[in-house]
Amino acid sequence: MSDVQSDQPTPERNRIEKLVSSARFENAIFVVIVFNAIILGLETSAFVMSHVGGLIHFLDSACLSIFVFEIALKLYARRWQFFRRGWSVFDLIIVGVALLPGSSGLSVLRALRILRVLRVISVAPRLRRVVEGFITALPGMASVFLLMTLIFYIGSVMATKLFASEFPHWFGNLGLSAYSLFQIMTLESWSMGIVRPVMEVYPLAWAFFVPFIMVTTFAVVNLLVGLIVNSMQDAHHEEDVAKTDTYRDEVLKRLEAIEAKLNSK
Amino acid sequence: MSDVQSDQPTPERNRIEKLVSSARFENAIFVVIVFNAIILGLETSAFVMSHVGGLIHFLDSACLSIFVFEIALKLYARRWQFFRRGWSVFDLIIVGVALLPGSSGLSVLRALRILRVLRVISVAPRLRRVVEGFITALPGMASVFLLMTLIFYIGSVMATKLFASEFPHWFGNLGLSAYSLFQIMTLESWSMGIVRPVMEVYPLAWAFFVPFIMVTTFAVVNLLVGLIVNSMQDAHHEEDVAKTDTYRDEVLKRLEAIEAKLNSK
Amino acid sequence: MSDVQSDQPTPERNRIEKLVSSARFENAIFVVIVFNAIILGLETSAFVMSHVGGLIHFLDSACLSIFVFEIALKLYARRWQFFRRGWSVFDLIIVGVALLPGSSGLSVLRALRILRVLRVISVAPRLRRVVEGFITALPGMASVFLLMTLIFYIGSVMATKLFASEFPHWFGNLGLSAYSLFQIMTLESWSMGIVRPVMEVYPLAWAFFVPFIMVTTFAVVNLLVGLIVNSMQDAHHEEDVAKTDTYRDEVLKRLEAIEAKLNSK
Amino acid sequence: MSDVQSDQPTPERNRIEKLVSSARFENAIFVVIVFNAIILGLETSAFVMSHVGGLIHFLDSACLSIFVFEIALKLYARRWQFFRRGWSVFDLIIVGVALLPGSSGLSVLRALRILRVLRVISVAPRLRRVVEGFITALPGMASVFLLMTLIFYIGSVMATKLFASEFPHWFGNLGLSAYSLFQIMTLESWSMGIVRPVMEVYPLAWAFFVPFIMVTTFAVVNLLVGLIVNSMQDAHHEEDVAKTDTYRDEVLKRLEAIEAKLNSK
Repeated sequence: MSDVQSDQPTPERNRIEKLVSSARFENAIFVVIVFNAIILGLETSAFVMSHVGGLIHFLDSACLSIFVFEIALKLYARRWQFFRRGWSVFDLIIVGVALLPGSSGLSVLRALRILRVLRVISVAPRLRRVVEGFITALPGMASVFLLMTLIFYIGSVMATKLFASEFPHWFGNLGLSAYSLFQIMTLESWSMGIVRPVMEVYPLAWAFFVPFIMVTTFAVVNLLVGLIVNSMQDAHHEEDVAKTDTYRDEVLKRLEAIEAKLNSK
Repeated sequence: MSDVQSDQPTPERNRIEKLVSSARFENAIFVVIVFNAIILGLETSAFVMSHVGGLIHFLDSACLSIFVFEIALKLYARRWQFFRRGWSVFDLIIVGVALLPGSSGLSVLRALRILRVLRVISVAPRLRRVVEGFITALPGMASVFLLMTLIFYIGSVMATKLFASEFPHWFGNLGLSAYSLFQIMTLESWSMGIVRPVMEVYPLAWAFFVPFIMVTTFAVVNLLVGLIVNSMQDAHHEEDVAKTDTYRDEVLKRLEAIEAKLNSK
Repeated sequence: MSDVQSDQPTPERNRIEKLVSSARFENAIFVVIVFNAIILGLETSAFVMSHVGGLIHFLDSACLSIFVFEIALKLYARRWQFFRRGWSVFDLIIVGVALLPGSSGLSVLRALRILRVLRVISVAPRLRRVVEGFITALPGMASVFLLMTLIFYIGSVMATKLFASEFPHWFGNLGLSAYSLFQIMTLESWSMGIVRPVMEVYPLAWAFFVPFIMVTTFAVVNLLVGLIVNSMQDAHHEEDVAKTDTYRDEVLKRLEAIEAKLNSK
Repeated sequence: MSDVQSDQPTPERNRIEKLVSSARFENAIFVVIVFNAIILGLETSAFVMSHVGGLIHFLDSACLSIFVFEIALKLYARRWQFFRRGWSVFDLIIVGVALLPGSSGLSVLRALRILRVLRVISVAPRLRRVVEGFITALPGMASVFLLMTLIFYIGSVMATKLFASEFPHWFGNLGLSAYSLFQIMTLESWSMGIVRPVMEVYPLAWAFFVPFIMVTTFAVVNLLVGLIVNSMQDAHHEEDVAKTDTYRDEVLKRLEAIEAKLNSK
């Protein structure tokens, strides 16, 4: 970004830029992503792997090479501009993660390779728009999320202090308590699984859990209401308001003209 | 569709068309469908079947014959036009499924015969409108559904790779994983039933499941929000906007006329 | 309703009508209802009943007598008009149910006496309005409800035919199947409790249950969406639209007058 | 509030008022609250407490002293005005609760000290606004809440009368019944956990529980719908309606002026 001169696109880079932006190139990448998704799915089948495991690994590596090559082309053509588009960075990270493990034995890193399929989102405009819609909805929810974090922190500290000694498996430390409270918030086995057993030792435990359920449910409901109201206004207004404003300006202008004419006589 | 001439309705076909389109005919069919529904319900009772099983089977066959005859009449009267209405095709398939088993022993095919009762929907206009409302809502949800499919595919591959060895019953292959993840998405026994046992072997399993729950729940919520916003706009606008536009045109036309008159003096 | 003459309110009946419609009378009845609610609550306590059971029974009978007397007064004053108000009929039925058991031993009828407390709704205008709001929302949901009934009927017949032989406890007859499907629709233990055990015998059972869950959930969501859209329009329009229409008529009338004036010159 | 003279802010009190209202002071308090939250979180760790327990206790006391000093300053500066702001009273109560236990052994009171962290809400304007939004939504829900209380009371009395003898653990008294019905309303294990076992003794128990679930769910849905409609109208109207009204007044005024001019000629 500093030395602007060297960033001037040369004809060579322009040609590559045109190539990687072409619809044909994007469709080819799309096909490779879907093909790779199938390959990675087949990798989970013990039967397939025992018979054509070598082929599957080879095809997977081929797909990965294509992705690396594609991103290298884009990096060469766009230089720093590459990092300006969030979706390019997203692609880079996801392919990078896939490179990380090499042939290591860490199963988690191997499992993460399937995340490469998420590249479908960055390639298909419709999916991209849905995800962008999700992301733009997030800031409006930040305050309620912060409040939820606060409620969970306070709830976890209280639950740990009150129940850790008798129920170390559920409320033994802050992490376990937070997990148990998340389960309770989703209403999964909250009563039969957790609160009734706790109430056998602490009969007043409901006075902690029932209000916790009510407060978090109410907060979640408010999150939902906020989302609906925001989407509604976005969808509603933009076009409509513009049209109404144009019309109103027109009416007022004309009325003024008529008045002026009448006055001038 | 090719030879238009032979498709010209003859007087004979016109008469039958008038018959099958008459309200009285439709009501009769409606009565037969409801009667058949009751017959098929009685068929589930061992007591009824052991006493009047023959009668039940006869009445069921009679209903089916009426449906076949009705559709044959419609096919004769409308020819290719028959296939233009989606609901006619729906009737044809549903009655066709009922014919398939004959007297075969396959219980699944016998159970599918009850689907004939779905014909109530194609006959009752109110129900038809509700279902048509459902169907028109589907395309707007296509993108989010696609995204959900993607999330489920990635989730299933990851869950299979990570947990197949220790929990083959839940995550043994892609299908089992997808089913288990669907159960987790509905929040049914997700923690006590699945995640807590998994966490006993892989203590960090929550880092996979809790985000999965959050992402899928958020996607479902967005589906709901989208549905609400769309229905709202549909219900809202059509009539209202038309009325507003008419009014606005009227006002502007009149203002122009007044200005023209003033200018012409 | 036939002999109008005898229905002409006499001065006597007018006086009683004035009494039972007075705010003081309604408040007194409200206090009796709340008092009776407490009495009926105390009746559930074995400790209270063993010490002052006689008093509780006496007070309950006293409350009931007051209700009977109140309704008798209203019936005398209003005659057939009494039955015109839905809430009066509601009161009559609820008090009538309380009279039914007498001193019989049937515990269900004794338990139904608490329904008397529902009279609070007919007496408190705010609660009455909420319930009336609920009831006005019902017709708009009729079609979807009908569809749900259809889905449940078809689902119950299919489930009974498919699974009755192996799981008689859950799907033994239409009633048991309907109950189990209702449980599955509420997502309670649907997988761990029901579908996984069923899948051990019929591995393809998910192909019946997962679509059932999706269809019913989608129908419930549409019910919710319909409710929201309807409430929104009701709340929105009435006042707003009236105001807008008045304004528009005014503008058009004035523009016409101006044009007429200009033309007449 | 009686002797107004002594309530006249002296220069001294004015200076302190300026201090406690300054952004720097508020930020400092915010930092202390967050620091105290971390300290209280560390207190739950047995490992930390066994090594630096003394330090943790000292830091906690230090934070508490700062809060007491802060509130004392505000009380001195604002006197009765202090109690006019709901959030000041909120702070006072929360810090007061933290003071209560002293060094008592009551673990509940010790656990309540974490509530001090809720002061973050009163200090951070964004969170304060969210909570104020929640609180303003409550009155609109009062009627439905009242109705829910009524339904729960009636449901609890009925459940106790019907099932107390056979299932004392779930429906033994009004409190236990209300808790069980709350669990059933949240749909947690309602069928497998509670209703199916009950139905083994009372086969018709579903006739009580299924309607209960439907009514309470419908009430909760209506609560949600009400919330959405209210938020929508609040968000929608204020600004929009004002703008429309201004425009309409303007148009009508001008039309009147034109008519007057035409008439005066």
